[in-house]
Amino acid sequence: MELLSSPCTGAMLMHNNSYNGVMQLIDFQTEPSRYRHWRIECDGDLAYLIMDVDPAGGLSDGYELKLNSYDLGVDIELNDAVQRLRFEHPEVHCVVIKSGKDNVFCAGANIRYLGKATHQQKVNFCKFTNETRLAIEDASENSKQIYVCAINGNAAGGGYELALAADHIMLVDDRRSAVALPETPLLAVLPGTGGLTRVTDKRKVRRDRADVFCSIEEGIRGAKAVEWRLVDEVVANSKWNDTVAARAKEIATRSDRPKDAKGITLTPLERKIKTDRVSYTYVEAEIDRARSLATLTVRGPSQAAPHSVEAGHALGAAFWPLTVARELEDVILHLRANEAGIGVVLLRTDGDSEAVLAHDDFLATANGDWLMREIRLYLKRVLKRIDVTPKSFIALIEPGSCFAGTLAELAFAADRSLMLIGTREGDNRRPAAITLGPANFGSYPMGNGLTRLQTRLLGEPEALKAAEGRIGVAIEAEEAAELGLVTLVYEDFDWDDELRVMLEERTSFSPDAMTGMEANLRFAGPETMETKIFGRLTAWQNWIFQRPNAIGDEGALKLYGSGVKPVFGRERV
Amino acid sequence: MELLSSPCTGAMLMHNNSYNGVMQLIDFQTEPSRYRHWRIECDGDLAYLIMDVDPAGGLSDGYELKLNSYDLGVDIELNDAVQRLRFEHPEVHCVVIKSGKDNVFCAGANIRYLGKATHQQKVNFCKFTNETRLAIEDASENSKQIYVCAINGNAAGGGYELALAADHIMLVDDRRSAVALPETPLLAVLPGTGGLTRVTDKRKVRRDRADVFCSIEEGIRGAKAVEWRLVDEVVANSKWNDTVAARAKEIATRSDRPKDAKGITLTPLERKIKTDRVSYTYVEAEIDRARSLATLTVRGPSQAAPHSVEAGHALGAAFWPLTVARELEDVILHLRANEAGIGVVLLRTDGDSEAVLAHDDFLATANGDWLMREIRLYLKRVLKRIDVTPKSFIALIEPGSCFAGTLAELAFAADRSLMLIGTREGDNRRPAAITLGPANFGSYPMGNGLTRLQTRLLGEPEALKAAEGRIGVAIEAEEAAELGLVTLVYEDFDWDDELRVMLEERTSFSPDAMTGMEANLRFAGPETMETKIFGRLTAWQNWIFQRPNAIGDEGALKLYGSGVKPVFGRERV
Repeated sequence: MELLSSPCTGAMLMHNNSYNGVMQLIDFQTEPSRYRHWRIECDGDLAYLIMDVDPAGGLSDGYELKLNSYDLGVDIELNDAVQRLRFEHPEVHCVVIKSGKDNVFCAGANIRYLGKATHQQKVNFCKFTNETRLAIEDASENSKQIYVCAINGNAAGGGYELALAADHIMLVDDRRSAVALPETPLLAVLPGTGGLTRVTDKRKVRRDRADVFCSIEEGIRGAKAVEWRLVDEVVANSKWNDTVAARAKEIATRSDRPKDAKGITLTPLERKIKTDRVSYTYVEAEIDRARSLATLTVRGPSQAAPHSVEAGHALGAAFWPLTVARELEDVILHLRANEAGIGVVLLRTDGDSEAVLAHDDFLATANGDWLMREIRLYLKRVLKRIDVTPKSFIALIEPGSCFAGTLAELAFAADRSLMLIGTREGDNRRPAAITLGPANFGSYPMGNGLTRLQTRLLGEPEALKAAEGRIGVAIEAEEAAELGLVTLVYEDFDWDDELRVMLEERTSFSPDAMTGMEANLRFAGPETMETKIFGRLTAWQNWIFQRPNAIGDEGALKLYGSGVKPVFGRERV
Repeated sequence: MELLSSPCTGAMLMHNNSYNGVMQLIDFQTEPSRYRHWRIECDGDLAYLIMDVDPAGGLSDGYELKLNSYDLGVDIELNDAVQRLRFEHPEVHCVVIKSGKDNVFCAGANIRYLGKATHQQKVNFCKFTNETRLAIEDASENSKQIYVCAINGNAAGGGYELALAADHIMLVDDRRSAVALPETPLLAVLPGTGGLTRVTDKRKVRRDRADVFCSIEEGIRGAKAVEWRLVDEVVANSKWNDTVAARAKEIATRSDRPKDAKGITLTPLERKIKTDRVSYTYVEAEIDRARSLATLTVRGPSQAAPHSVEAGHALGAAFWPLTVARELEDVILHLRANEAGIGVVLLRTDGDSEAVLAHDDFLATANGDWLMREIRLYLKRVLKRIDVTPKSFIALIEPGSCFAGTLAELAFAADRSLMLIGTREGDNRRPAAITLGPANFGSYPMGNGLTRLQTRLLGEPEALKAAEGRIGVAIEAEEAAELGLVTLVYEDFDWDDELRVMLEERTSFSPDAMTGMEANLRFAGPETMETKIFGRLTAWQNWIFQRPNAIGDEGALKLYGSGVKPVFGRERV
């Protein structure tokens, strides 16, 4: 059975495969004409991103998306909208998120959806929504498409957490509308989509006030919400629309985005999903469910880098770095959501290193151009998705591969890398090599604020300097090992056996232990708000998502809305 | 029934109480003459801290402490030893941890103990052992009693994690002895006593090497252990003892501890444990299990501050700040280990603020004295224990209280503080006040490296400055609220009702959600290795401690040693 791309937004597609019989596929591709929950309304240098959730549009049956509550499908549209605003609307300098409903802004994640979801689905949902909110922050900070949240109605839980992602939060003063994080009193879980972390670390709400705020089901409104730093301003109902527009106009002036540029269209991906394979133009994933293994191959550019910025624009979505970013992102999201049984992902590249580096150079040189900046920022975000993906990544660096510049980041994102020494018999291609480029020394910071090489070589600053001195050189296995760029190097003679044993071993370990181990080892060095959200906050939330007080038959998530009060074990762990 | 202090090391005492019938009490007090697992051998400016675990000396029946493996009882002795070396042995400048067994250094936490432990016991055990290892690091760094770990035999799991706490790690090169973190392959859990974090962040082992290292059951030895930064040096068996002594001598010269000073004796605590009350000289806890509530009262000094450093020394363990630190620490550990059903702790103080501040001044002035420095460092560690205690702390600031200087930190460590406006009818004591001292601005950094006031006022540096300008002034309720020092202020008329409602509400919430919420809100701002251990690493480990792959009937912790291989669900979460 074959599925073509993008049948409908966040659809759950029935899909036969050998792994678990019939599988429901979640599709992360969509486009505005298919949105059921969001509208984009552009108005010169402003855009309004309007949340108007269709209650009947849930990703699966069995719950209604009342009160602008959301499930993964709603957030897939949001992610798409944030992305398209950046690429398709360079002229938009400020985005205002607001509600299309009367009297409610957003009631947060849908509790019945969460209550029915498996543990894996809950965790994956939260990860994706966290990434979307970080993408909003990245748009404000780095794309200078600055987000304002105009809270016209109650913003509770995930609704307020969405607002927290904005650069500026406005709250209507209608004596009803409030912001709230009622997760702990109502649901026995945490405000886990960044809420707790952003309240203290971004909004810098005093910790004891945050403690009080998180205990008040009905939330806080009016002047007190400003005094407590929960919102930036409250505005009288009568002046609401005008003030929001005026504030957005004012904030738009802080942008450095162009005034009259034309966006590009993010055309549908070329994608084929077969039982054991997902194929795109430059990316391909082979799925071996029996071995819990996927092999992801990224191909280098098939064309030379453009000769001019204009030529780059003319390529649009077909420009190699952008195509690769989109395809890589989609396949990572697919593996997370639809292939939870896959524990190890082999990362391979195929192509010409020089061509990869030429594209990197082009992007760097043209970084003053809004589109090329977007593409680099997008590549950064896609690589960060790998960093928080709960699979073991093993990079295989062999002859014919192109781990150069941007694609070398795949090797540095991997938990381990294996590199072939020299060539293979009968293969007359050049020996396996890594080629570093300037992109490896600053273009793609991880969530911790460091580059992958800085994180990797935290204890060896002199090695980092030595690596920088080898920019542009095809570094073969022994030197790569010397420089600390790869984990293990093998001769052709040993390669297959070593790899087979490593994979058998890796997939024999507890998947939970691997996930926990990787979530720790990947983030050496400083923590930032972003890594705190994925580390501290998410890990605690995942723990709570396993606890009977939340998910047991008498737990709060199960009983929510039933009228029956949950019964909590009283033990403090 | 009444229990006098310290019946035997880490003993499980049968103790009747109304909460759960018969309760097993864990005692955190011990002393060297009662150790079953450790020996201290002093040799001039060196001390050897020798681990020689009595296999039959487990905290409860049903497992043997083979191969120098440890349970909570073993770690209670280690904590005591580390503490006494600091206070009782100023002349010791370097401490060498080594094994008293042939062929094994330490096999880590006892797996059968862990397998039998409840979730709460596992988590509490890991927290305490983490604190002990941090205390070792604090001794090296701040007391300049510098730890060396001399690994004479295999150091696996918690055994190597103990070594990681030392400033300098030596490994014997006998072709057998190795360091290992085999938790993930063998037990499906994490090296959770700081292991993963210290490997990447303290030792700065490259993340891919750490990944490999954590997958190798038998560990790494010899030159490779040095090359990978896992140990600082390997030493041939024939030169082992001499080299260890020489290295320790050399490291001892980096200490600024005195040469000929006499230590003080940490005499047994004056402690009475009754069913609903634990009493010490200056500290008292009332336990109300029906309401999941404890009230902790700390009394100010009953004497004036000493007139000279010598007079302070003469007081020894009876010196108020030291007594308070010891009593507060003991009661916190008691509440954690023996009163898991208590969800909320009210923090009260009683006494004369001037006397507290006079003691603070004395400690600050005499900080060049080794003992006074020890006492301040100890107070810092005790306050940090509160920060990571899974109970809600609410400070009550009322007339007659002495939230001043060091004791004001209790209010700033609390999740909330309530302060009475003015006085109570018929009470002619002065109005409730907080009095800040210089101690609140640097003496007691939290794990995140900031003071509690800095963390609290992260978004309001001007408020922090204003507070500093009020040092020494008795700040009454309204001004305290203005300065951001307290959460809520009430008139006498409202006090009881407000407090009652707050407590009813707090204890009605899910204890898990509260623990997760507090673990996030308490640590605004930067993360350090220490907070990463308690946040990221511990939260992931706690999650794994709930997962069937670890603790299910077919999980690795349950089946360890049975010869039956665990069966893992393959899903990646």
